[in-house]
Amino acid sequence: MFAVIMAGGSGTRFWPASRPHMPKQFLKITSDRTMLEETMARVSLFTTLERTSVVVGQIHAEVTAQLLTGTPVQAIIEPTGRNTSACIGLAALHLKHDPQAAMAVLPADAFIANVNAFAASLKAAGEIAQTGAIVTLGIQPNRPETGYGYLQAGEARGAAQGQTYFQVARFVEKPDALTAVKYLANGDYFWNSGIFIFTVETILQEIETHLPELHAGLCEIEKAIGTTEYEAVLQRIYPTLESISIDYGVMERTSKPIYMLKTNFGWSDVGSWQALYELRTEDYDANGNLLLGDAVTVDARNNLVYATTGRKIALLGVENLAVVDTPEALLIAPIERSQDVKKISDLLKK
Amino acid sequence: MFAVIMAGGSGTRFWPASRPHMPKQFLKITSDRTMLEETMARVSLFTTLERTSVVVGQIHAEVTAQLLTGTPVQAIIEPTGRNTSACIGLAALHLKHDPQAAMAVLPADAFIANVNAFAASLKAAGEIAQTGAIVTLGIQPNRPETGYGYLQAGEARGAAQGQTYFQVARFVEKPDALTAVKYLANGDYFWNSGIFIFTVETILQEIETHLPELHAGLCEIEKAIGTTEYEAVLQRIYPTLESISIDYGVMERTSKPIYMLKTNFGWSDVGSWQALYELRTEDYDANGNLLLGDAVTVDARNNLVYATTGRKIALLGVENLAVVDTPEALLIAPIERSQDVKKISDLLKK
Repeated sequence: MFAVIMAGGSGTRFWPASRPHMPKQFLKITSDRTMLEETMARVSLFTTLERTSVVVGQIHAEVTAQLLTGTPVQAIIEPTGRNTSACIGLAALHLKHDPQAAMAVLPADAFIANVNAFAASLKAAGEIAQTGAIVTLGIQPNRPETGYGYLQAGEARGAAQGQTYFQVARFVEKPDALTAVKYLANGDYFWNSGIFIFTVETILQEIETHLPELHAGLCEIEKAIGTTEYEAVLQRIYPTLESISIDYGVMERTSKPIYMLKTNFGWSDVGSWQALYELRTEDYDANGNLLLGDAVTVDARNNLVYATTGRKIALLGVENLAVVDTPEALLIAPIERSQDVKKISDLLKK
Repeated sequence: MFAVIMAGGSGTRFWPASRPHMPKQFLKITSDRTMLEETMARVSLFTTLERTSVVVGQIHAEVTAQLLTGTPVQAIIEPTGRNTSACIGLAALHLKHDPQAAMAVLPADAFIANVNAFAASLKAAGEIAQTGAIVTLGIQPNRPETGYGYLQAGEARGAAQGQTYFQVARFVEKPDALTAVKYLANGDYFWNSGIFIFTVETILQEIETHLPELHAGLCEIEKAIGTTEYEAVLQRIYPTLESISIDYGVMERTSKPIYMLKTNFGWSDVGSWQALYELRTEDYDANGNLLLGDAVTVDARNNLVYATTGRKIALLGVENLAVVDTPEALLIAPIERSQDVKKISDLLKK
């Protein structure tokens, strides 16, 4: 089984800690390791790092190379981001020497609490993918979340490694608040984790069928793999590929079976400082402060501090604040407003 | 007329901007000049800078020398702080060549809005001091302040330069809240500005009478003035002088007349970040933010930012916060809690 970690994100949701050159997957926010390192550690529970690749943008090639030093993990560079269809297609080209092998594609910047349960699901998914199906992981929701897409589970289709898998009845966009409540009550709706498992051959066939122009571009690139021309061809072709998500480009169009496993291993895409704060309850101090940095508090409750400057941070009498202290900038906002940091970064771009 | 600016304070109330090596009088908080520079500018309206001295602690000699570069102002160094009686006595020694001249002693770290009214009061006070009296300035209170000492005004005793002066009935300690309300309603109570005016001869006589040991020490130092021994004698004697305020040491004991002028020139001792915020209403942005630094705001109201790091500071959705950003430390507190910063600096000392 191959693992392909998609680390191409350029997120701004963790501004000012995340910047174009240092997006979320390279931040030490969920632990004292970067999210990419956490993801690699998790991947090593269901496959070997020799069979693991990281797809990453050109501007992050250097920081990625540093993180991969001493590991057998291969970096696959995207000259520019072209969405997940191109990303997965490019990775599949590099794995085409073993077309019957399952490949799991997964984002580099998600949090998973129970990594053993996660690995067990991936192993089952790899087995199911050998049938030629596309497999995805649905996450049992525990709240009416409006920030995620959903999978509606259909009928059970079988079992692998003791785990029942189900037909995906449909992919659903992020719902409004009322719909999210209904989904939660219904019980058939699961969060779309963005994790997919298929064989190399299956996904390349699907791209050829449903995204023929993109596939043609990939074939150009494929010819150059292993030659001195690779870099130049990649730079020329890749930026011209259609930018479309795998959900739209393949999942909504395919005639292959799409199966899902119902999982409940404590997943979060950690989409904001608030999400991070809510995730790390075990690291709170006695007053509910999550202090990731050199902070002292007096009469301060339920604050999040994330600091990379090494400066002393003193919180006196404040509550529910996110304080993000980096060499370039300082953010202070109520934790529940932290999803609005884009307003600040937009303002600064002007 | 001489001016003696007392710049020996070591305040911690503006932590983390104020530190032992950089107390309030050296901060640019009331304008884009330091408070000491503001005080010198103000002094130059009633006397010349040639007749101005700054008394300053040894550890601030260097920063003071930088500020005085290019001015004729003389620095008088205290090896250690020994309170205002010793400070004023030391300054008077250096002015003893003109014993009949009035000397105004005033703190380096007060704010005054109407500097012309201030200068007019000082000129009148200088004239009154020529009679051998001790003169002080009472500040018309505009709120029941519990953070200041008060002067109770007695009967009118005369006028100088069109300004009536009054007997000081008594010096009063900082009152409790109820007493402060009574003082405000009474109308005879004025804030004690800590500004005194007397002739050089008068204050030295008073020190000799009421603080004879301190005076004896000063005489030892006096003999060394103008010799190569001065520095060594000062280092040896000054730290042994009694540490007592001029209020306790002289004002409460003197049999000389103590007069006061009733003034109303917009005075504040700027005792906290809150006091500073309340002072600088003219510098607020449209949302009541006082932004002394490179700050951007979104939905943020009535905040104070004071920053010396040059970093971008982003306030999103917060209100009534003091944010003090320095290379060593960052403080975040509600403005109304800013008088409690001592709790933080005490905690950090442990």
